Amino acid sequence: MNALPDLDQLDTYKADKSRLGRELERLVGDFPKPEGTFPPPYGVVGVGEGWWPAELLRSRFPDTLARGTTFVLAGGYGLGRLAGLLEAAREESERVVVLGFGPEAEVLVPSSPLAPYRYLRYVLEATGEGALGAEVDEALAAEAERLTPYVPSPENPAKLLAWGLIERIPLWVASDRYPMLAQALQQVFARIAKSLSIAPPPAALEFFITALEARHEQGDPLVAVVLGEDEETRLAKEVLATRVDYLEELEPPKTKGPLPEALAYWYRLAWTGYYLALLYRKDPGDHEVLARLREAAS
Amino acid sequence: MNALPDLDQLDTYKADKSRLGRELERLVGDFPKPEGTFPPPYGVVGVGEGWWPAELLRSRFPDTLARGTTFVLAGGYGLGRLAGLLEAAREESERVVVLGFGPEAEVLVPSSPLAPYRYLRYVLEATGEGALGAEVDEALAAEAERLTPYVPSPENPAKLLAWGLIERIPLWVASDRYPMLAQALQQVFARIAKSLSIAPPPAALEFFITALEARHEQGDPLVAVVLGEDEETRLAKEVLATRVDYLEELEPPKTKGPLPEALAYWYRLAWTGYYLALLYRKDPGDHEVLARLREAAS
Repeated sequence: MNALPDLDQLDTYKADKSRLGRELERLVGDFPKPEGTFPPPYGVVGVGEGWWPAELLRSRFPDTLARGTTFVLAGGYGLGRLAGLLEAAREESERVVVLGFGPEAEVLVPSSPLAPYRYLRYVLEATGEGALGAEVDEALAAEAERLTPYVPSPENPAKLLAWGLIERIPLWVASDRYPMLAQALQQVFARIAKSLSIAPPPAALEFFITALEARHEQGDPLVAVVLGEDEETRLAKEVLATRVDYLEELEPPKTKGPLPEALAYWYRLAWTGYYLALLYRKDPGDHEVLARLREAAS
Repeated sequence: MNALPDLDQLDTYKADKSRLGRELERLVGDFPKPEGTFPPPYGVVGVGEGWWPAELLRSRFPDTLARGTTFVLAGGYGLGRLAGLLEAAREESERVVVLGFGPEAEVLVPSSPLAPYRYLRYVLEATGEGALGAEVDEALAAEAERLTPYVPSPENPAKLLAWGLIERIPLWVASDRYPMLAQALQQVFARIAKSLSIAPPPAALEFFITALEARHEQGDPLVAVVLGEDEETRLAKEVLATRVDYLEELEPPKTKGPLPEALAYWYRLAWTGYYLALLYRKDPGDHEVLARLREAAS
């Protein structure tokens, strides 16, 4: 029917030069382990790649700096901000733990589109929230079983969704239950699929109903990708049904609780981005693409 | 050269059925005035249209709920969330002031794309920050002078920018100095110009460098609109220069301080959206468009 690569042929995976597929498959459990828990109370602050895990942990640890231990998720490029942050943390906290890939990091988390999982899991273990961490891992392991390359296209939700997103622009419609999931998907989709997507601003309903009104766009069709079910996503679906080219409701992950659910959705979309990159014959990794940024920002 | 409306002809303004132009011209000073200041300390929480002013006030009032007075900027549609919020505020605070357009609102702020200014100005007055409020007003008044319809296209930055955005998709590149300005622009641009735009996720540089890599889009060209100057926007310009169709750096507003600057940029883009709506022969107001949402959400 067309000349796109076949996701069920091993040959297709040669485009994965940086072996992101292997990183995706082995993600569960692949994080630096703290030797024990740190002194409470806890604060978490995120920079660069660390922004989403910090946001996810906000419901548990509302403060950015805390008297006990402050975790600084420093997954970014220099740019000065980090130095001030570290100084403030060291003044406030008994213990400051810096995670990331810069020279300040005592716990190494290499730059990767998948790094948010690693930051999150380390902090959960280090704060005595290992049980919640295990739930996250279970949720991801359940996803992985259906999403790996060995599961053929007709049964593989990530492969199927990737086909649906070719030359389309996803509009993320995420329940408020998942803090900043839409932005996290925008980021992981960019870094893996090398493609644009749209996260709505807060007060998303007003945005959905007005932003597509002039509809002068003649380009790639929009796909509304719906994550989670509540009154707001229900209304969004109603509004968007006649305004986008198609609407894809994702099956809920097999887990309970906002945090494991959010991570499971994110992981599923990371796999989807992976397959989409292969369909575009792009390397799903981004080390090469980001090398230029690292040089410019150093 | 083409059949687009002429922004320097009065006739063109007939499309402004809901008279948003008048609201834009009269915005400075047009907000509900509190009778005095309320008991400190202060907390601010925003729902719906109120999300951005609450975010802007976060640097002054870090708490959402406070012992003294909690301002609830309730510019949203029911959907349940407000009730819980009000209950929590009433438990925590000596005084709770609800602003907005729902039945709970004691201070009326009607639904409008320009409402963020009104929420912000009321809270500044009610918390003894009138001097800062006056700076915001001065900044907006200075903008208004150059942006009204009476200033012809060649000298009017909003008209010029509107011409540059026709059938293009803006990608907002805002300095971190302005909290969530990109999302606020995404919102005001949707509600007035009825058009899509893209706000990057946090860690925007990684997004800019990767999201346009597959570049399969065949549609509306992207315009990077740059607001504010710092190391990050400088790097973003470098990255985007070869990746977008054109790059528009906005002239800094004639004011000092993040808050007046952010409001001035927002107001300039509201005017830009206004002219763009007229170029598309769309009503720049959104009462009619939002009526359906109000019905669905009530």
